[in-house]
Amino acid sequence: MARIVMKFGGTSMAGMERIRKVAARVKHEVERGNEVAVVVSAMAGETDRLVGFCKEASPLYDEAEYDVVVAAGEQVTSGLLAMTLKAIGVDARSWLGWQLPIRTSETHSKARIEEIETSALLAAMASGQVAVIPGFQGQMADGRVSTLGRGGSDTSAVAVAAAIKADRCDIYTDVDGVYTTDPRIVSRARKLDMVTYEEMLELASVGSKVLQTRSVALAMKENVRVQVLSSFEEPGDDPEPGTMIVSEQEIEESDMERQLITGIAHDKNEAKIVLTKVPDRPGIVAAIFGPLADASINVDMIIQNVGHSGIVTDVTFTVPRADVARSVDILETEKEKIGFESIITDVEVAKISVVGVGMRSHAGVAATMFKTLADRGINIEAISTSEIKVSVIIDEDETELAVRVLHSAYGLDAEQPVA
Amino acid sequence: MARIVMKFGGTSMAGMERIRKVAARVKHEVERGNEVAVVVSAMAGETDRLVGFCKEASPLYDEAEYDVVVAAGEQVTSGLLAMTLKAIGVDARSWLGWQLPIRTSETHSKARIEEIETSALLAAMASGQVAVIPGFQGQMADGRVSTLGRGGSDTSAVAVAAAIKADRCDIYTDVDGVYTTDPRIVSRARKLDMVTYEEMLELASVGSKVLQTRSVALAMKENVRVQVLSSFEEPGDDPEPGTMIVSEQEIEESDMERQLITGIAHDKNEAKIVLTKVPDRPGIVAAIFGPLADASINVDMIIQNVGHSGIVTDVTFTVPRADVARSVDILETEKEKIGFESIITDVEVAKISVVGVGMRSHAGVAATMFKTLADRGINIEAISTSEIKVSVIIDEDETELAVRVLHSAYGLDAEQPVA
Repeated sequence: MARIVMKFGGTSMAGMERIRKVAARVKHEVERGNEVAVVVSAMAGETDRLVGFCKEASPLYDEAEYDVVVAAGEQVTSGLLAMTLKAIGVDARSWLGWQLPIRTSETHSKARIEEIETSALLAAMASGQVAVIPGFQGQMADGRVSTLGRGGSDTSAVAVAAAIKADRCDIYTDVDGVYTTDPRIVSRARKLDMVTYEEMLELASVGSKVLQTRSVALAMKENVRVQVLSSFEEPGDDPEPGTMIVSEQEIEESDMERQLITGIAHDKNEAKIVLTKVPDRPGIVAAIFGPLADASINVDMIIQNVGHSGIVTDVTFTVPRADVARSVDILETEKEKIGFESIITDVEVAKISVVGVGMRSHAGVAATMFKTLADRGINIEAISTSEIKVSVIIDEDETELAVRVLHSAYGLDAEQPVA
Repeated sequence: MARIVMKFGGTSMAGMERIRKVAARVKHEVERGNEVAVVVSAMAGETDRLVGFCKEASPLYDEAEYDVVVAAGEQVTSGLLAMTLKAIGVDARSWLGWQLPIRTSETHSKARIEEIETSALLAAMASGQVAVIPGFQGQMADGRVSTLGRGGSDTSAVAVAAAIKADRCDIYTDVDGVYTTDPRIVSRARKLDMVTYEEMLELASVGSKVLQTRSVALAMKENVRVQVLSSFEEPGDDPEPGTMIVSEQEIEESDMERQLITGIAHDKNEAKIVLTKVPDRPGIVAAIFGPLADASINVDMIIQNVGHSGIVTDVTFTVPRADVARSVDILETEKEKIGFESIITDVEVAKISVVGVGMRSHAGVAATMFKTLADRGINIEAISTSEIKVSVIIDEDETELAVRVLHSAYGLDAEQPVA
């Protein structure tokens, strides 16, 4: 017997026909003798509908009431799944955020889970009852409803799994696992059996949006074994294994033939900004990036070029595309203080990253990347590296080409193309 | 300063444009120096949508989970109204059923309100904050969500008004008050300034569905002054007074020129059933109506005709049209036990009622009714009377004619037709 958390997203909960399939899938796990808690999202489109009402009420809507409104979406699906389970003979009940409760921080619309009260939940599960828990919602110390921010249901599922010490947290999604790269670009992309939390974090942060970054970070912190798998298989079958997200240690123990590189990610949501002829003096970095941070603009890569004259330098960095205009406005206001000559922006760039825990112990990963891209005439505009990742900025038009040649160069191509 | 409960139905809450009008109306009451609690329904159509999901989940859905699902509709509108009020500068917050809490009986999907905890609510209202309360929902002793049954929001409003000892409970509807009869039938119908609880109960139970019968009964028991008024006026104006529903004593004190008859109601939702040649022996009534009551069939009028031979008799009664087939089935099963000869059903009948507290002290009300109908050749198929009501069953085709001639006969016609 295992204790399992199953999480189903909005696409899986969109309408009663799909909810019935989810119920059948849950029943299958129960019949295998497992204790099961299910975390559900709102029906696809429902949260957008509710957020739309709030925005219509006022662009500066009250966030405490926003939480009351949008939490209703998951309340509905948790009730519907529980009643569907009962209708097919599986004992079940819904546990709303305030009923457990799931205690959160005091920040409406982007609360963090602090503690989940599990005594009633565990007793119910031990008696064979499936617990159905709405994702995304919780309760603050003052008794009011809170929500975790968009995509928070993955985080709810991992938090529940940590709280009840689940053997596994299965996240059912519209993909059947984590791939070495986007299969829409590389038909010979391979599904990974296992990936480490750290790799998943890097992959998530560079555009492989299988899981919310926050939920992966929480899983790593709490050491929750997370499995990503497909919600589209027929519920009667034993599901095809997805991708397990686990600790590096667990991978080392189980996976002898591990690749050097785990995956290639790409991200077209960034833009490049260059400040030319910035005086090379102490405090200049703070003068540039302080005001951007104050405006909550998330600066990713930063490269300080060597100045041509020895006393001035170009500073290149990337920001989300949506924030380019705002970033330029802020920097123009600070122009005198910073003392740069001009601002050059380029939104037609892409970030390509190779990710892998293996590169820690192997030299030459970055060199292979640079040589592979150079051989195909792809110009590298910026480089940044972390312990398990090398990222480069290139021209957006060359994204797919770069991903394909790198996927081959690191030996990731499968023998057969993806069906 | 007065303490007021305002209740808005689903039509008034259908979409942000209408919710903004409701907010403006609430603001107007606040600016007049009143303490205000608002009880809201779900958006028109939303409860049907949610109930539809439940029925799709299973015809025999779990009622505890049904309550979780359908309570979401009012949760959404209470959050939206509270944030809309804040956006126009009126301090407000939503109080969900479990947050007050509104304690109910242990019967999911048709709970009764037992107690409303008011200390936090009254403190908030005293500080000038408008309390927005979702109608229809409450919490059971075991902490689970309950709902009051369809149309329960009127009952929620009256219960809140009773609990906080409100000076008035204003129910905003799509009509501007209670009329002497249906203005679609009689253009000279008059809006009543006042009506007693008892009269309103009789009018509601015979087809004038302005308010849920349950909410009127609760208002009578708790002596809550209820006003029915239109939600369609512009919020800036002082609203046109609607109809006050009050105690008989209050009417006697204020309304010198009270009519003998308050209104004429009609109801096409009943059907007539006649059992012929029923043996006239003790216990026969129980033999007929016991099985129908066991099947929750609501028998309204019962007339036992004098038997022709002295030992057998015809029994005539009315049931809701929707229950005719089921009633006949049940009676056929009991045929030997009861010993009747045949069952005659007639669904093309209407019930016409004249209602008025005044008839208590005046003879001749029923006689006027019978003569008026006879003069126009309308045949009376059955009669029943209560202290403040006389009802007759007639051919459905003559409904409008009967209502018009009675409205004139009792002097209820207004000088000018309704606009």
